[in-house]
Amino acid sequence: MPSASLPAPLDPPVRTLLGPGPSDTHPRVLAAMSKSTVGHLDSYYLQLMDGMQQMLRSVFQTKNRMTFAVSATGSAGMEAAVVNVVEPGDSMVVCVNGVFGGRMADVAGRAGANVTKVERPWGEVFAVGDLKEAIAKAKPKAVGIVLAETSTGAWQPIEEIAAVVRESGAMLIVDAVTALGGLPVEVDRWGVDVIYSGSQKCLSCPPGLAPISFSDRALEGILARKTKVQSWYLDVSMLAQYWGSDRVYHHTAPINMTYGLYEALRLVLDEGLENCFARHRRNHLALKAGLAALGITYTAAQGHQLPMLNAVRVPEGIDDARVRGELLSRFGIEIGGGLGAFKGKVWRIGLMGYGSRPANVLLFLAALEQLLAEQGHQFDGGAGVAAANAAYSSTK
Amino acid sequence: MPSASLPAPLDPPVRTLLGPGPSDTHPRVLAAMSKSTVGHLDSYYLQLMDGMQQMLRSVFQTKNRMTFAVSATGSAGMEAAVVNVVEPGDSMVVCVNGVFGGRMADVAGRAGANVTKVERPWGEVFAVGDLKEAIAKAKPKAVGIVLAETSTGAWQPIEEIAAVVRESGAMLIVDAVTALGGLPVEVDRWGVDVIYSGSQKCLSCPPGLAPISFSDRALEGILARKTKVQSWYLDVSMLAQYWGSDRVYHHTAPINMTYGLYEALRLVLDEGLENCFARHRRNHLALKAGLAALGITYTAAQGHQLPMLNAVRVPEGIDDARVRGELLSRFGIEIGGGLGAFKGKVWRIGLMGYGSRPANVLLFLAALEQLLAEQGHQFDGGAGVAAANAAYSSTK
Repeated sequence: MPSASLPAPLDPPVRTLLGPGPSDTHPRVLAAMSKSTVGHLDSYYLQLMDGMQQMLRSVFQTKNRMTFAVSATGSAGMEAAVVNVVEPGDSMVVCVNGVFGGRMADVAGRAGANVTKVERPWGEVFAVGDLKEAIAKAKPKAVGIVLAETSTGAWQPIEEIAAVVRESGAMLIVDAVTALGGLPVEVDRWGVDVIYSGSQKCLSCPPGLAPISFSDRALEGILARKTKVQSWYLDVSMLAQYWGSDRVYHHTAPINMTYGLYEALRLVLDEGLENCFARHRRNHLALKAGLAALGITYTAAQGHQLPMLNAVRVPEGIDDARVRGELLSRFGIEIGGGLGAFKGKVWRIGLMGYGSRPANVLLFLAALEQLLAEQGHQFDGGAGVAAANAAYSSTK
Repeated sequence: MPSASLPAPLDPPVRTLLGPGPSDTHPRVLAAMSKSTVGHLDSYYLQLMDGMQQMLRSVFQTKNRMTFAVSATGSAGMEAAVVNVVEPGDSMVVCVNGVFGGRMADVAGRAGANVTKVERPWGEVFAVGDLKEAIAKAKPKAVGIVLAETSTGAWQPIEEIAAVVRESGAMLIVDAVTALGGLPVEVDRWGVDVIYSGSQKCLSCPPGLAPISFSDRALEGILARKTKVQSWYLDVSMLAQYWGSDRVYHHTAPINMTYGLYEALRLVLDEGLENCFARHRRNHLALKAGLAALGITYTAAQGHQLPMLNAVRVPEGIDDARVRGELLSRFGIEIGGGLGAFKGKVWRIGLMGYGSRPANVLLFLAALEQLLAEQGHQFDGGAGVAAANAAYSSTK
């Protein structure tokens, strides 16, 4: 029963992706992905895997041998982290202050963990004190927390919490999907056991791969499991034989996605991590100044606002969906709406990777000014753009 | 601890991929993958998803509503099929006559199934009689079988087995990773409940997506499960809300991989399924004639030899690894070695998708002749190429 007619030829519109991800793919990454495919056991591909592991260790700031990319998107990175560490009946504490903490709790429950959720209101972060009691009571094998909550724009400090988790003997699992490449992620210095990310945020690569790193301690725990990892596809004990020197065939790696991430990592490291973080911060501050001039405020508290994901309150009397729809239809700009508790109330403006540049900040503010004025929002015309420009002048 | 030096710039060699997959990516697919990324909830992307579902239904020859692509490689397609259908404690019968049947049994065990393996020697296929007893005894909820065993080159007839499985009330899960796009896959006519494939074989797309289809009966069973699907990432009840009209955010889809598969499916359907199958068959027969002239025989029996994956015996006295190494280093041609029981004894020559064309058949035979002659193999010089050319002449 083949269809009579084919769907339309592929012709994607060119967008400016300023949402919660995917972010704009860097042109060099797009070009990389269109190179001709080699075999997944080709010596050239094995060499690329080595180079990618080396670069991932640099961006994660770790010496962890088992640092690689899961052959799927960031959410599969989360699942890989949890299902390898947790066995049925194990206790796990999960910190929930947004969508992704909630997702991790769901994933842990499906892996057979007895899950203790520690909750904070959306937009807030956890302090050490929030966790101590839960850890003492639950005696968890693992504690999960989100470094950059994409649903709320909150930047979670990890270092002190890591020390407490470590002291308890538990493994710390950190979600760095939105964080990696845009703010400091110091796996070894903090003492994180498992950390994962996604290719489509601050790495300027399309979605499809999930960078991940396991400490030697975590890996030893996994190799000593009493039960098989429930997922064959994500079983790190098998993946270690493919990514290690043995090169034992496991699954067929996504070759051209690897080309993309390889090129993306070269771009980040070529710029230098510190420069990259400073650029994210500078564009964030300019955007924030511009938004403030338009009377728009952040959902996360001062000091806990992510540089790459600006979650702000939709101004009183403004039609959320209409603004987002017209940003896209009239200016080709995508921003994100709120999820869950923030639906209709919050905009999520991403300045991630290649997308984090002055041109995008100014374009977005200029376009937003036009739409807000049309909806009767009160502000001095040009105030947003002027404030952003002033912020740029003052920092360079 | 960022590394002092970056790994080499990306510069993959151009290969001719005649192994078990990935196969050569079609140039139009490579170009598609380098189009600029759109958001995963962009109306354009949702339209692409619809078009992709429509085209996947055509290649699977099904009306199944829940036909889509898993955001990972073919092995994740296998895992998605099994973990959605099977609940802990369920009985499952798996047919094992090669690597991929063995993998399915492993996946099913990890999902908590009581697995009954029915085995046949590598290279052979199953008849209805091989299964009846196991089904009567195990009373399985699901039966798993591989349509095209990539490790052995055996082509498994499905139709009669499907009828027996259906009669027993069990769900039939079929692995069509290597088959789809290269030989008839008639999901509705055969009565298959779950079937999955991979993008990197006869669809001429890089690895990274797994086409999959669930019958309404399978979907009803999944929605009536007593337990949650163990994998959050692969949970079809949630994926149905993203791929269905609700468009509920689940994970971030691999946008540029979708571009690639979309273009790949357009290519297959533009050629027409019947023409595509005939092309695979024609090139297979020419290769086979050429190999026969060199004294090289197939591992699978006549009538059960896959057109896209030619598994043949390494001739007596010939150094397997040296031939494969020199095909690659001197001619840029990749073929596959044997896995498991076939290691060192079998070559796997893929003529898949865009790779299935006369130029590749002739090039491969000509190069092989040179290498075999160097290793003292006895044959009439040019006999392989001549036999292939004769086969082409006789069929057109």
